[in-house]
Amino acid sequence: MVDISGKPEVYREAKARGIIRLKPQTIKLIKEGKISKGDPITVARIAATLAAKNTSSLIPLCHQIPLTNVSLKFEFLDDSRIAVESTVRTKAQTGVEMEALAAVSTALLTIWDMTKQYEKDEKGEYPNTTIEHICVLRKIKGKPDERDLEET
Amino acid sequence: MVDISGKPEVYREAKARGIIRLKPQTIKLIKEGKISKGDPITVARIAATLAAKNTSSLIPLCHQIPLTNVSLKFEFLDDSRIAVESTVRTKAQTGVEMEALAAVSTALLTIWDMTKQYEKDEKGEYPNTTIEHICVLRKIKGKPDERDLEET
Amino acid sequence: MVDISGKPEVYREAKARGIIRLKPQTIKLIKEGKISKGDPITVARIAATLAAKNTSSLIPLCHQIPLTNVSLKFEFLDDSRIAVESTVRTKAQTGVEMEALAAVSTALLTIWDMTKQYEKDEKGEYPNTTIEHICVLRKIKGKPDERDLEET
Amino acid sequence: MVDISGKPEVYREAKARGIIRLKPQTIKLIKEGKISKGDPITVARIAATLAAKNTSSLIPLCHQIPLTNVSLKFEFLDDSRIAVESTVRTKAQTGVEMEALAAVSTALLTIWDMTKQYEKDEKGEYPNTTIEHICVLRKIKGKPDERDLEET
Amino acid sequence: MVDISGKPEVYREAKARGIIRLKPQTIKLIKEGKISKGDPITVARIAATLAAKNTSSLIPLCHQIPLTNVSLKFEFLDDSRIAVESTVRTKAQTGVEMEALAAVSTALLTIWDMTKQYEKDEKGEYPNTTIEHICVLRKIKGKPDERDLEET
Amino acid sequence: MVDISGKPEVYREAKARGIIRLKPQTIKLIKEGKISKGDPITVARIAATLAAKNTSSLIPLCHQIPLTNVSLKFEFLDDSRIAVESTVRTKAQTGVEMEALAAVSTALLTIWDMTKQYEKDEKGEYPNTTIEHICVLRKIKGKPDERDLEET
Repeated sequence: MVDISGKPEVYREAKARGIIRLKPQTIKLIKEGKISKGDPITVARIAATLAAKNTSSLIPLCHQIPLTNVSLKFEFLDDSRIAVESTVRTKAQTGVEMEALAAVSTALLTIWDMTKQYEKDEKGEYPNTTIEHICVLRKIKGKPDERDLEET
Repeated sequence: MVDISGKPEVYREAKARGIIRLKPQTIKLIKEGKISKGDPITVARIAATLAAKNTSSLIPLCHQIPLTNVSLKFEFLDDSRIAVESTVRTKAQTGVEMEALAAVSTALLTIWDMTKQYEKDEKGEYPNTTIEHICVLRKIKGKPDERDLEET
Repeated sequence: MVDISGKPEVYREAKARGIIRLKPQTIKLIKEGKISKGDPITVARIAATLAAKNTSSLIPLCHQIPLTNVSLKFEFLDDSRIAVESTVRTKAQTGVEMEALAAVSTALLTIWDMTKQYEKDEKGEYPNTTIEHICVLRKIKGKPDERDLEET
Repeated sequence: MVDISGKPEVYREAKARGIIRLKPQTIKLIKEGKISKGDPITVARIAATLAAKNTSSLIPLCHQIPLTNVSLKFEFLDDSRIAVESTVRTKAQTGVEMEALAAVSTALLTIWDMTKQYEKDEKGEYPNTTIEHICVLRKIKGKPDERDLEET
Repeated sequence: MVDISGKPEVYREAKARGIIRLKPQTIKLIKEGKISKGDPITVARIAATLAAKNTSSLIPLCHQIPLTNVSLKFEFLDDSRIAVESTVRTKAQTGVEMEALAAVSTALLTIWDMTKQYEKDEKGEYPNTTIEHICVLRKIKGKPDERDLEET
Repeated sequence: MVDISGKPEVYREAKARGIIRLKPQTIKLIKEGKISKGDPITVARIAATLAAKNTSSLIPLCHQIPLTNVSLKFEFLDDSRIAVESTVRTKAQTGVEMEALAAVSTALLTIWDMTKQYEKDEKGEYPNTTIEHICVLRKIKGKPDERDLEET
């Protein structure tokens, strides 16, 4: 575990992103609000927020960081892909990219779980479903005052 | 949440897989055992095992399933990619693919966390690091007796 | 902790119910989908499902019971009250009324949290908001076969 | 999740309260220290303290707030009701009423669990047991110096 | 993680034991019910029960085992030592000695925490306090029928 | 729970230590890297780090303290004993000795779990295995500046 005892607390922000590929028919059902277990986007948002807050239990050497905000955006890229973007904010001694990545990963897993029954083939396998390209889009460190101006 | 009250308990197995792309220099450091936070493979294995057991807290509509085995394999695919494969087993009323996927995702996030300092550029960004192609490889349902023969 | 080692595993079901009183204006905003933090009903459903599964960590002497189903119903009783009803099912050596009660309590707390900003007065107090009458509506023990007929 | 990134850390306090109705005979057994699972008041106090600290996992959009104090008071109101009052304190960017409510709710659920066997009728139902009137009694924001004088 | 997929579910029991050494003055205060944070024995019992149920999260390669009973005994050995003995029961595919050990360890740590202020010297150090000799006393496997006779 | 609302945040450090006694043959297998479940030292290090971060859930009246560092040292004392030493650091309103003790206890339990199969006799009992002498070695409060000089 990296020793952050001597580091100052500054404003931190991280954005991460990832994609899930589903069958076009499943994407259509999501858009029409017809997934029987509930809306995958809403449930994924909640699961991702909880996961971001729980990152230090999930990833062993992460520090416990009280987050000041977690937000999620979902975008239908085309007829078979949904992109998830997370933004995590805090004032802390270390960055929050792992929290942003944990949020995105959990959102994608939750979408998978919510749409399982439509994605399975007759053998219970998932020939179409994949999670793709999880990455960190941006990190911000410090400059909380400028940010406050931007945000307001 | 799907009602599984009426389903019988049978042997279940799921295999999932995913890939993390790192800088060749980072891969080299992992192979040489020179990552300062510790061996990413070993820590990822532990984190993934814990995550598989904790899936029903991570993914809201998953059932609580006591697993009888979680195992992880790691493979260096080339000079910039590591593949993680999880196998999860149980005797339960529903499948364990979400447990296998949670294990793989957490293993990949943990490798990212363990190698962060080598992957960051001078601005703290990750131009090379990505998690790619998480999928379910195989599911098995039932036939515990045949399986016992295979395994022994 | 009650020793249930000698008890047989049988089908168990419990239903619990509780009410939250909010301002009529807040109820109206919920119905119109205008709560800024998101839909309180949907988030409460997820939180309650997670809480039911986590009951043995929340209530110290509860046994760990893998649930086969958790479901939630929400009803607007009049212009200032929402009723929450949970149903929890399993096959286990002991009843699941605490799981059903934990689900209801957590759903009600979550609705409070989601609507906080509309319920607070100018001093930040909650003169109107109360959680009322949490009770167990029904318990079922055994007779899984009859139940299967009913449910199908 | 409300973005509290720009808010200052100030002293926060919240008091919440709720009531559980039990059979007079059960209340008598509690007072006489004859509940076979142990003292419901003591166990409820511990469960409530743990729940308050765990609020951000229980209620999805709550922030993680390190609490500086959680305290619980229990009062026998008459021969069939116990009132629970929680006080939660911290220095934080947002209020702690949800933490106080989570403490009260969990204390009440734990009293129910500890007295279950005395409250059940011959069918395993709970005709007398109810949790009633959970509310926030008071919130304090800021003025830590004045408070220190009061408390000492 | 050991693969227990092929093992039968049988009755399992494990007993573990450990000792904490405190100052005679602290032991006296415990016996007289004068510890200001509350009764260390009662709080230790609750903490140990919760820890036993949570063993598979605490110890990475432990299986998730729903326990049918956790019980704790506390004994004042002499004027400066308390012994804690845990008994854990289940019907499972693997033994529960780690659950019994986790219960004992957590009970001992909790007693330490509850008596901290009486054990510290003027520098905040603990010259007298130690946890000693944690061991497994006994394990039982199978023979649930004989056991039922014994217990009844 | 002790009310720390009025206390200042200062640098805090605590070191704890404990010993596990194993069979000489098991110690030899650990040193040779031949334990089939994996390296007990590595797994214990991860488990202890996670436990330290989770102390406030494990020990009921502990405050939630975001740690800035957790580190573990392992030493083979002789042919049958391993010593574990933890160091925990933070800037907080209260000390972190319970976090250091939780880390040591969990490390020792994890070593036990990892070496179980080599320590059991033919009856599944553990005649040789014991955890011994868990204590707090040192606490530091304040003087973060001097410490920064030392550490750099």
